[in-house]
Amino acid sequence: MSGWLKIAGLGPGDDALVTPQVRAAIDAASDVVGYFPYIARIADRPGLRRHGSDNRVELDRARTALALAAEGARVVVASSGDPGVFAMASAVFEALEDGPEAWREVDIEVLPGITAMLAASARAGAPLGHDFCAINLSDNLKPWALIEKRLRAAIEADFAIALYNPRSASRPEGFARLLGILRETCEPERLILFARAVTTPEESLTITTLAEALPEMADMRTMVIIGSSLTRRVAARRPLIYTPRSAP
Amino acid sequence: MSGWLKIAGLGPGDDALVTPQVRAAIDAASDVVGYFPYIARIADRPGLRRHGSDNRVELDRARTALALAAEGARVVVASSGDPGVFAMASAVFEALEDGPEAWREVDIEVLPGITAMLAASARAGAPLGHDFCAINLSDNLKPWALIEKRLRAAIEADFAIALYNPRSASRPEGFARLLGILRETCEPERLILFARAVTTPEESLTITTLAEALPEMADMRTMVIIGSSLTRRVAARRPLIYTPRSAP
Repeated sequence: MSGWLKIAGLGPGDDALVTPQVRAAIDAASDVVGYFPYIARIADRPGLRRHGSDNRVELDRARTALALAAEGARVVVASSGDPGVFAMASAVFEALEDGPEAWREVDIEVLPGITAMLAASARAGAPLGHDFCAINLSDNLKPWALIEKRLRAAIEADFAIALYNPRSASRPEGFARLLGILRETCEPERLILFARAVTTPEESLTITTLAEALPEMADMRTMVIIGSSLTRRVAARRPLIYTPRSAP
Repeated sequence: MSGWLKIAGLGPGDDALVTPQVRAAIDAASDVVGYFPYIARIADRPGLRRHGSDNRVELDRARTALALAAEGARVVVASSGDPGVFAMASAVFEALEDGPEAWREVDIEVLPGITAMLAASARAGAPLGHDFCAINLSDNLKPWALIEKRLRAAIEADFAIALYNPRSASRPEGFARLLGILRETCEPERLILFARAVTTPEESLTITTLAEALPEMADMRTMVIIGSSLTRRVAARRPLIYTPRSAP
Protein backbone atom coordinates (compact mmCIF):
# COMPACT_ATOMS: atom_id res chain seq x y z
CA MET A 1 0.00 0.00 0.00
CA SER A 2 1.68 3.18 -1.19
CA GLY A 3 -1.04 5.63 -0.18
CA TRP A 4 -0.42 8.66 1.97
CA LEU A 5 -2.25 11.61 3.49
CA LYS A 6 -0.72 15.06 3.69
CA ILE A 7 -2.67 17.76 5.51
CA ALA A 8 -1.34 20.86 3.80
CA GLY A 9 -1.56 24.55 4.67
CA LEU A 10 -2.20 26.83 1.68
CA GLY A 11 -1.52 29.98 3.71
CA PRO A 12 -3.78 33.04 3.84
CA GLY A 13 -4.51 33.45 0.12
CA ASP A 14 -1.53 34.71 -1.87
CA ASP A 15 0.12 31.90 -3.85
CA ALA A 16 3.51 33.49 -3.06
CA LEU A 17 2.94 32.30 0.52
CA VAL A 18 2.46 28.62 -0.39
CA THR A 19 5.60 26.73 0.61
CA PRO A 20 7.48 24.60 -1.96
CA GLN A 21 6.80 21.61 0.33
CA VAL A 22 3.05 22.08 -0.03
CA ARG A 23 3.38 22.72 -3.77
CA ALA A 24 5.31 19.44 -4.20
CA ALA A 25 2.65 17.52 -2.25
CA ILE A 26 -0.10 18.90 -4.48
CA ASP A 27 1.92 17.99 -7.59
CA ALA A 28 2.34 14.41 -6.32
CA ALA A 29 -1.28 13.93 -5.20
CA SER A 30 -3.88 11.70 -6.85
CA ASP A 31 -6.67 13.30 -4.81
CA VAL A 32 -7.26 16.67 -3.17
CA VAL A 33 -9.90 17.00 -0.48
CA GLY A 34 -11.10 20.23 1.08
CA TYR A 35 -13.59 23.03 1.51
CA PHE A 36 -14.66 24.32 -1.94
CA PRO A 37 -12.83 27.68 -1.88
CA TYR A 38 -9.55 25.99 -0.93
CA ILE A 39 -9.91 23.30 -3.61
CA ALA A 40 -10.54 26.13 -6.08
CA ARG A 41 -7.02 27.40 -5.37
CA ILE A 42 -5.51 24.17 -6.72
CA ALA A 43 -5.02 24.02 -10.50
CA ASP A 44 -6.78 21.22 -12.33
CA ARG A 45 -4.68 18.64 -14.16
CA PRO A 46 -5.28 15.24 -15.79
CA GLY A 47 -5.44 12.45 -13.22
CA LEU A 48 -6.12 14.71 -10.22
CA ARG A 49 -9.40 13.88 -8.49
CA ARG A 50 -10.97 16.82 -6.65
CA HIS A 51 -13.25 16.30 -3.65
CA GLY A 52 -14.73 19.65 -2.67
CA SER A 53 -17.08 19.87 0.27
CA ASP A 54 -19.04 22.44 2.17
CA ASN A 55 -18.03 24.23 5.33
CA ARG A 56 -18.90 22.62 8.68
CA VAL A 57 -18.34 19.05 7.53
CA GLU A 58 -14.73 18.76 8.66
CA LEU A 59 -15.13 15.25 10.07
CA ASP A 60 -16.82 13.91 6.91
CA ARG A 61 -14.03 15.45 4.86
CA ALA A 62 -11.38 13.91 7.14
CA ARG A 63 -13.02 10.47 6.82
CA THR A 64 -13.14 10.75 3.03
CA ALA A 65 -9.45 11.58 2.97
CA LEU A 66 -8.45 8.76 5.35
CA ALA A 67 -10.54 6.19 3.43
CA LEU A 68 -8.96 7.22 0.13
CA ALA A 69 -5.42 7.07 1.54
CA ALA A 70 -6.10 3.69 3.19
CA GLU A 71 -7.06 2.38 -0.26
CA GLY A 72 -3.73 3.54 -1.70
CA ALA A 73 -4.49 7.06 -2.92
CA ARG A 74 -2.02 9.92 -2.50
CA VAL A 75 -4.24 12.44 -0.76
CA VAL A 76 -3.74 16.12 0.04
CA VAL A 77 -6.20 17.64 2.48
CA ALA A 78 -6.14 21.33 1.58
CA SER A 79 -6.44 23.67 4.55
CA SER A 80 -6.19 27.43 4.55
CA GLY A 81 -3.51 29.00 6.71
CA ASP A 82 -1.75 26.38 8.82
CA PRO A 83 -3.57 23.04 9.12
CA GLY A 84 -2.58 22.74 12.78
CA VAL A 85 -4.18 26.03 13.89
CA PHE A 86 -7.99 25.81 14.11
CA ALA A 87 -8.04 23.83 10.88
CA MET A 88 -8.06 20.34 9.41
CA ALA A 89 -5.22 18.53 11.22
CA SER A 90 -7.10 18.00 14.48
CA ALA A 91 -10.21 16.96 12.52
CA VAL A 92 -8.21 14.25 10.75
CA PHE A 93 -6.85 12.90 14.04
CA GLU A 94 -10.34 12.93 15.57
CA ALA A 95 -11.65 10.96 12.58
CA LEU A 96 -8.70 8.57 12.76
CA GLU A 97 -9.39 7.74 16.40
CA ASP A 98 -13.05 6.97 15.69
CA GLY A 99 -12.41 5.12 12.44
CA PRO A 100 -11.57 1.61 11.29
CA GLU A 101 -8.33 0.01 12.47
CA ALA A 102 -6.87 0.10 8.94
CA TRP A 103 -6.73 3.91 8.99
CA ARG A 104 -4.10 3.79 11.75
CA GLU A 105 -1.63 2.42 9.22
CA VAL A 106 -1.96 5.41 6.89
CA ASP A 107 1.21 7.45 6.44
CA ILE A 108 0.08 10.90 7.67
CA GLU A 109 2.04 14.12 7.52
CA VAL A 110 1.08 17.67 8.46
CA LEU A 111 2.65 20.33 6.21
CA PRO A 112 2.70 23.70 7.94
CA GLY A 113 1.55 26.94 6.34
CA ILE A 114 1.39 30.65 7.09
CA THR A 115 -1.48 30.94 9.54
CA ALA A 116 -3.77 34.00 9.40
CA MET A 117 -2.43 35.68 12.54
CA LEU A 118 1.14 35.65 11.21
CA ALA A 119 0.06 37.06 7.86
CA ALA A 120 -2.06 39.74 9.52
CA SER A 121 0.68 40.61 11.98
CA ALA A 122 3.25 40.92 9.17
CA ARG A 123 1.02 43.24 7.13
CA ALA A 124 0.45 45.50 10.14
CA GLY A 125 4.00 45.49 11.59
CA ALA A 126 4.72 43.11 14.48
CA PRO A 127 1.92 43.13 17.06
CA LEU A 128 2.82 39.52 18.01
CA GLY A 129 6.47 40.41 18.65
CA HIS A 130 6.17 39.55 22.35
CA ASP A 131 4.21 36.85 24.23
CA PHE A 132 0.74 36.24 22.81
CA CYS A 133 -2.18 33.84 22.61
CA ALA A 134 -4.62 32.65 19.96
CA ILE A 135 -8.30 32.08 20.69
CA ASN A 136 -10.92 30.74 18.28
CA LEU A 137 -14.36 32.35 18.67
CA SER A 138 -15.99 29.95 16.23
CA ASP A 139 -19.37 28.50 17.14
CA ASN A 140 -20.23 25.21 18.71
CA LEU A 141 -16.71 24.17 19.59
CA LYS A 142 -16.72 25.40 23.17
CA PRO A 143 -19.01 27.13 25.66
CA TRP A 144 -18.94 30.90 25.91
CA ALA A 145 -17.94 30.62 29.59
CA LEU A 146 -14.65 29.03 28.55
CA ILE A 147 -13.99 31.75 25.97
CA GLU A 148 -14.64 34.40 28.60
CA LYS A 149 -12.38 32.66 31.11
CA ARG A 150 -9.57 32.47 28.56
CA LEU A 151 -10.03 36.07 27.53
CA ARG A 152 -9.85 37.28 31.15
CA ALA A 153 -6.75 35.15 31.79
CA ALA A 154 -5.12 36.49 28.61
CA ILE A 155 -5.79 40.10 29.67
CA GLU A 156 -4.44 39.35 33.17
CA ALA A 157 -1.30 37.87 31.57
CA ASP A 158 -1.05 40.92 29.28
CA PHE A 159 -0.73 38.76 26.18
CA ALA A 160 -1.41 40.18 22.75
CA ILE A 161 -4.50 38.24 21.66
CA ALA A 162 -5.15 36.90 18.17
CA LEU A 163 -8.84 36.13 17.59
CA TYR A 164 -9.77 33.65 14.87
CA ASN A 165 -13.33 33.62 13.49
CA PRO A 166 -14.42 36.64 15.53
CA ARG A 167 -17.91 36.90 14.04
CA SER A 168 -19.44 33.55 13.30
CA ALA A 169 -22.86 33.03 11.77
CA SER A 170 -24.39 31.26 14.74
CA ARG A 171 -22.71 33.37 17.41
CA PRO A 172 -22.65 36.90 16.00
CA GLU A 173 -22.95 38.52 19.43
CA GLY A 174 -19.76 36.92 20.80
CA PHE A 175 -17.38 39.54 19.52
CA ALA A 176 -19.51 42.39 20.89
CA ARG A 177 -19.48 40.70 24.32
CA LEU A 178 -15.73 40.31 24.04
CA LEU A 179 -15.31 44.03 23.33
CA GLY A 180 -17.45 44.69 26.42
CA ILE A 181 -15.09 42.61 28.60
CA LEU A 182 -12.08 44.39 27.13
CA ARG A 183 -13.67 47.75 27.95
CA GLU A 184 -14.13 46.69 31.56
CA THR A 185 -10.51 45.66 31.95
CA CYS A 186 -8.25 47.53 29.52
CA GLU A 187 -7.44 51.17 28.85
CA PRO A 188 -9.43 52.86 26.01
CA GLU A 189 -6.19 53.49 24.07
CA ARG A 190 -5.50 49.75 23.72
CA LEU A 191 -4.67 49.11 20.04
CA ILE A 192 -6.73 46.71 17.96
CA LEU A 193 -6.00 45.47 14.45
CA PHE A 194 -8.78 44.34 12.12
CA ALA A 195 -7.13 42.55 9.20
CA ARG A 196 -9.58 41.34 6.57
CA ALA A 197 -8.81 38.93 3.72
CA VAL A 198 -5.11 39.45 4.22
CA THR A 199 -2.86 38.99 1.12
CA THR A 200 -5.90 38.74 -1.19
CA PRO A 201 -7.15 41.48 -3.55
CA GLU A 202 -9.88 42.26 -0.97
CA GLU A 203 -7.39 42.92 1.82
CA SER A 204 -8.20 45.75 4.21
CA LEU A 205 -6.38 46.71 7.39
CA THR A 206 -7.79 48.88 10.16
CA ILE A 207 -5.73 49.89 13.15
CA THR A 208 -7.88 51.44 15.82
CA THR A 209 -8.28 51.70 19.59
CA LEU A 210 -10.55 49.87 21.97
CA ALA A 211 -12.50 53.12 22.41
CA GLU A 212 -13.18 53.32 18.66
CA ALA A 213 -13.63 49.60 17.89
CA LEU A 214 -17.06 48.42 16.72
CA PRO A 215 -18.36 44.86 16.44
CA GLU A 216 -19.15 45.51 12.76
CA MET A 217 -15.45 45.96 12.00
CA ALA A 218 -15.09 42.15 12.04
CA ASP A 219 -16.64 39.46 9.88
CA MET A 220 -15.78 35.82 9.16
CA ARG A 221 -12.87 36.83 6.93
CA THR A 222 -11.34 39.10 9.57
CA MET A 223 -8.46 38.34 11.87
CA VAL A 224 -8.54 40.51 14.99
CA ILE A 225 -5.42 41.16 17.03
CA ILE A 226 -5.79 42.89 20.39
CA GLY A 227 -2.50 44.47 21.40
CA SER A 228 -0.92 43.96 24.79
CA SER A 229 -0.58 47.02 27.05
CA LEU A 230 2.83 47.63 25.40
CA THR A 231 1.74 47.44 21.76
CA ARG A 232 2.37 50.79 20.08
CA ARG A 233 2.09 52.64 16.82
CA VAL A 234 5.21 53.34 14.76
CA ALA A 235 5.59 56.66 13.03
CA ALA A 236 6.46 55.22 9.64
CA ARG A 237 5.42 55.64 5.99
CA ARG A 238 2.20 53.74 6.56
CA PRO A 239 0.24 52.89 9.72
CA LEU A 240 2.09 50.16 11.59
CA ILE A 241 1.97 48.73 15.11
CA TYR A 242 4.35 46.50 17.00
CA THR A 243 4.96 45.02 20.43
CA PRO A 244 8.48 45.60 21.77
CA ARG A 245 10.60 42.56 22.56
CA SER A 246 11.05 43.38 26.21
CA ALA A 247 8.65 44.06 29.06
CA PRO A 248 9.37 45.77 32.38
CA MET B 1 15.33 56.82 -3.43
CA SER B 2 14.45 53.27 -4.44
CA GLY B 3 15.69 51.46 -1.35
CA TRP B 4 13.58 49.11 0.66
CA LEU B 5 13.77 46.87 3.71
CA LYS B 6 12.11 43.47 3.85
CA ILE B 7 12.25 41.57 7.13
CA ALA B 8 11.97 38.01 5.88
CA GLY B 9 11.25 34.72 7.66
CA LEU B 10 13.37 31.79 6.48
CA GLY B 11 11.29 29.25 8.39
CA PRO B 12 12.68 26.59 10.73
CA GLY B 13 15.50 25.26 8.54
CA ASP B 14 14.29 23.22 5.57
CA ASP B 15 14.49 25.21 2.34
CA ALA B 16 11.22 23.59 1.24
CA LEU B 17 9.56 25.76 3.90
CA VAL B 18 10.87 29.08 2.54
CA THR B 19 7.97 30.86 0.82
CA PRO B 20 8.30 32.01 -2.81
CA GLN B 21 7.71 35.56 -1.51
CA VAL B 22 10.83 35.39 0.66
CA ARG B 23 12.82 33.72 -2.12
CA ALA B 24 11.89 36.55 -4.50
CA ALA B 25 12.93 39.18 -1.95
CA ILE B 26 16.34 37.52 -1.52
CA ASP B 27 16.77 37.35 -5.31
CA ALA B 28 16.01 41.08 -5.60
CA ALA B 29 18.18 42.19 -2.67
CA SER B 30 21.43 44.13 -2.87
CA ASP B 31 22.20 43.41 0.80
CA VAL B 32 21.32 40.70 3.29
CA VAL B 33 21.66 41.38 6.99
CA GLY B 34 21.35 38.81 9.77
CA TYR B 35 22.72 36.48 12.38
CA PHE B 36 25.58 34.43 10.86
CA PRO B 37 23.78 31.03 10.68
CA TYR B 38 20.80 32.60 8.89
CA ILE B 39 23.01 34.47 6.42
CA ALA B 40 24.74 31.14 5.76
CA ARG B 41 21.44 29.79 4.44
CA ILE B 42 21.43 32.39 1.63
CA ALA B 43 23.38 31.47 -1.50
CA ASP B 44 26.17 33.81 -2.51
CA ARG B 45 25.92 35.59 -5.87
CA PRO B 46 27.73 38.45 -7.59
CA GLY B 47 26.54 41.82 -6.36
CA LEU B 48 24.99 40.55 -3.14
CA ARG B 49 26.54 42.12 -0.05
CA ARG B 50 26.34 39.96 3.06
CA HIS B 51 26.32 41.50 6.54
CA GLY B 52 26.54 38.71 9.10
CA SER B 53 26.51 39.51 12.78
CA ASP B 54 26.60 37.75 16.09
CA ASN B 55 23.68 36.79 18.26
CA ARG B 56 22.44 39.33 20.85
CA VAL B 57 23.07 42.37 18.67
CA GLU B 58 19.58 42.61 17.20
CA LEU B 59 19.37 46.39 17.52
CA ASP B 60 22.77 46.98 15.89
CA ARG B 61 21.72 44.70 13.06
CA ALA B 62 18.41 46.54 12.70
CA ARG B 63 20.21 49.91 12.54
CA THR B 64 22.63 48.62 9.90
CA ALA B 65 19.71 47.46 7.79
CA LEU B 66 17.74 50.70 8.17
CA ALA B 67 20.78 52.84 7.36
CA LEU B 68 21.51 50.81 4.21
CA ALA B 69 17.90 51.00 3.02
CA ALA B 70 17.74 54.73 3.73
CA GLU B 71 20.75 55.15 1.44
CA GLY B 72 18.94 53.33 -1.37
CA ALA B 73 19.94 49.70 -0.85
CA ARG B 74 17.49 46.84 -1.30
CA VAL B 75 17.88 45.12 2.05
CA VAL B 76 16.64 41.77 3.31
CA VAL B 77 16.90 41.19 7.05
CA ALA B 78 17.05 37.40 7.35
CA SER B 79 15.21 36.01 10.36
CA SER B 80 14.64 32.39 11.24
CA GLY B 81 11.07 31.20 11.58
CA ASP B 82 8.64 34.11 11.34
CA PRO B 83 10.20 37.57 11.78
CA GLY B 84 7.19 38.76 13.78
CA VAL B 85 7.43 36.07 16.47
CA PHE B 86 10.29 36.68 18.93
CA ALA B 87 12.51 37.73 16.06
CA MET B 88 13.78 40.68 14.04
CA ALA B 89 10.62 42.61 13.12
CA SER B 90 10.12 44.21 16.54
CA ALA B 91 13.85 44.96 16.76
CA VAL B 92 13.65 46.88 13.47
CA PHE B 93 10.69 48.94 14.68
CA GLU B 94 12.45 49.67 17.98
CA ALA B 95 15.53 50.88 16.06
CA LEU B 96 13.33 52.91 13.71
CA GLU B 97 11.70 54.76 16.59
CA ASP B 98 15.05 55.65 18.12
CA GLY B 99 16.75 56.48 14.83
CA PRO B 100 17.16 59.47 12.52
CA GLU B 101 14.06 60.99 10.96
CA ALA B 102 15.10 59.80 7.47
CA TRP B 103 14.61 56.16 8.46
CA ARG B 104 10.87 56.77 8.83
CA GLU B 105 10.63 57.16 5.06
CA VAL B 106 12.05 53.70 4.36
CA ASP B 107 9.66 51.31 2.60
CA ILE B 108 9.44 48.46 5.15
CA GLU B 109 7.70 45.15 4.69
CA VAL B 110 7.51 42.10 6.95
CA LEU B 111 7.43 38.79 5.03
CA PRO B 112 5.98 36.02 7.19
CA GLY B 113 7.55 32.60 7.58
CA ILE B 114 6.85 29.26 9.26
CA THR B 115 7.55 29.91 12.92
CA ALA B 116 9.12 27.18 15.06
CA MET B 117 5.98 26.30 17.01
CA LEU B 118 4.02 25.62 13.81
CA ALA B 119 6.81 23.46 12.38
CA ALA B 120 7.17 21.55 15.66
CA SER B 121 3.42 21.13 16.00
CA ALA B 122 3.14 19.81 12.43
CA ARG B 123 5.91 17.25 12.94
CA ALA B 124 4.26 15.96 16.12
CA GLY B 125 0.60 16.02 14.98
CA ALA B 126 -1.51 19.00 16.03
CA PRO B 127 -0.93 19.97 19.67
CA LEU B 128 -1.87 23.59 18.81
CA GLY B 129 -5.20 22.56 17.27
CA HIS B 130 -7.17 24.42 19.95
CA ASP B 131 -6.57 27.70 21.83
CA PHE B 132 -2.92 28.23 22.76
CA CYS B 133 -0.29 30.76 23.77
CA ALA B 134 3.37 31.41 23.00
CA ILE B 135 5.84 32.52 25.67
CA ASN B 136 9.50 33.40 25.16
CA LEU B 137 11.78 32.30 28.02
CA SER B 138 14.79 34.12 26.57
CA ASP B 139 17.01 36.07 28.93
CA ASN B 140 17.02 39.70 29.76
CA LEU B 141 13.84 40.60 27.95
CA LYS B 142 11.51 40.41 30.92
CA PRO B 143 11.58 39.66 34.63
CA TRP B 144 11.00 36.09 35.80
CA ALA B 145 7.97 37.27 37.82
CA LEU B 146 6.21 38.18 34.57
CA ILE B 147 7.03 34.82 33.00
CA GLU B 148 5.65 33.05 36.05
CA LYS B 149 2.50 35.19 36.03
CA ARG B 150 1.92 34.40 32.37
CA LEU B 151 2.56 30.71 32.86
CA ARG B 152 0.07 30.53 35.73
CA ALA B 153 -2.55 32.43 33.71
CA ALA B 154 -1.98 30.12 30.73
CA ILE B 155 -2.47 27.03 32.91
CA GLU B 156 -5.60 28.57 34.44
CA ALA B 157 -6.91 29.25 30.92
CA ASP B 158 -5.98 25.67 29.90
CA PHE B 159 -4.11 26.87 26.84
CA ALA B 160 -1.60 24.64 25.11
CA ILE B 161 1.68 26.52 25.71
CA ALA B 162 4.48 26.92 23.17
CA LEU B 163 7.78 27.85 24.82
CA TYR B 164 10.43 29.58 22.73
CA ASN B 165 14.06 29.58 23.91
CA PRO B 166 13.35 27.35 26.91
CA ARG B 167 16.97 27.03 28.04
CA SER B 168 18.96 30.16 27.53
CA ALA B 169 22.61 30.60 28.38
CA SER B 170 22.13 33.24 31.03
CA ARG B 171 18.97 31.79 32.54
CA PRO B 172 19.44 28.01 32.42
CA GLU B 173 17.40 27.43 35.58
CA GLY B 174 14.24 29.02 34.17
CA PHE B 175 12.92 25.94 32.46
CA ALA B 176 13.44 23.78 35.56
CA ARG B 177 11.46 26.33 37.62
CA LEU B 178 8.76 26.27 34.99
CA LEU B 179 8.50 22.47 35.20
CA GLY B 180 8.18 22.88 38.97
CA ILE B 181 5.20 25.23 38.56
CA LEU B 182 3.59 22.85 36.09
CA ARG B 183 3.99 19.99 38.60
CA GLU B 184 2.20 22.05 41.26
CA THR B 185 -0.75 22.80 39.02
CA CYS B 186 -1.18 20.12 36.34
CA GLU B 187 -1.74 16.37 36.32
CA PRO B 188 1.39 14.17 35.92
CA GLU B 189 0.03 12.71 32.66
CA ARG B 190 0.07 16.14 30.97
CA LEU B 191 1.75 15.68 27.57
CA ILE B 192 4.89 17.62 26.66
CA LEU B 193 6.63 17.79 23.29
CA PHE B 194 10.33 18.50 22.99
CA ALA B 195 11.04 19.27 19.33
CA ARG B 196 14.69 19.94 18.59
CA ALA B 197 16.10 21.40 15.35
CA VAL B 198 12.85 20.68 13.55
CA THR B 199 13.05 20.08 9.77
CA THR B 200 16.88 19.97 9.88
CA PRO B 201 19.06 16.82 9.66
CA GLU B 202 19.52 17.04 13.46
CA GLU B 203 15.78 16.92 14.15
CA SER B 204 14.65 14.94 17.19
CA LEU B 205 11.17 14.71 18.66
CA THR B 206 10.35 13.51 22.16
CA ILE B 207 6.78 13.18 23.36
CA THR B 208 6.64 12.62 27.08
CA THR B 209 4.59 13.43 30.17
CA LEU B 210 5.06 16.04 32.84
CA ALA B 211 6.01 13.23 35.26
CA GLU B 212 8.84 12.10 32.97
CA ALA B 213 10.02 15.49 31.68
CA LEU B 214 13.53 16.65 32.62
CA PRO B 215 15.08 20.10 32.24
CA GLU B 216 17.91 18.54 30.21
CA MET B 217 15.45 17.57 27.48
CA ALA B 218 15.51 21.19 26.25
CA ASP B 219 18.30 23.33 24.88
CA MET B 220 18.43 26.53 22.83
CA ARG B 221 17.47 24.68 19.65
CA THR B 222 14.43 23.07 21.27
CA MET B 223 10.82 24.15 20.97
CA VAL B 224 8.75 22.92 23.92
CA ILE B 225 4.98 22.55 23.66
CA ILE B 226 3.02 21.83 26.84
CA GLY B 227 -0.32 20.28 25.95
CA SER B 228 -3.61 21.53 27.34
CA SER B 229 -5.57 19.19 29.62
CA LEU B 230 -7.26 17.81 26.49
CA THR B 231 -4.13 17.13 24.39
CA ARG B 232 -3.92 13.39 23.69
CA ARG B 233 -1.85 10.78 21.93
CA VAL B 234 -3.07 9.26 18.69
CA ALA B 235 -2.62 5.56 18.08
CA ALA B 236 -1.05 5.94 14.65
CA ARG B 237 1.97 4.63 12.74
CA ARG B 238 4.31 6.92 14.64
CA PRO B 239 3.96 8.79 17.94
CA LEU B 240 1.62 11.74 17.44
CA ILE B 241 -0.31 14.07 19.72
CA TYR B 242 -3.13 16.49 19.02
CA THR B 243 -5.57 18.77 20.77
CA PRO B 244 -9.19 18.26 19.73
CA ARG B 245 -11.03 21.17 18.16
CA SER B 246 -13.74 21.31 20.79
CA ALA B 247 -13.70 21.66 24.57
CA PRO B 248 -16.50 20.85 27.02
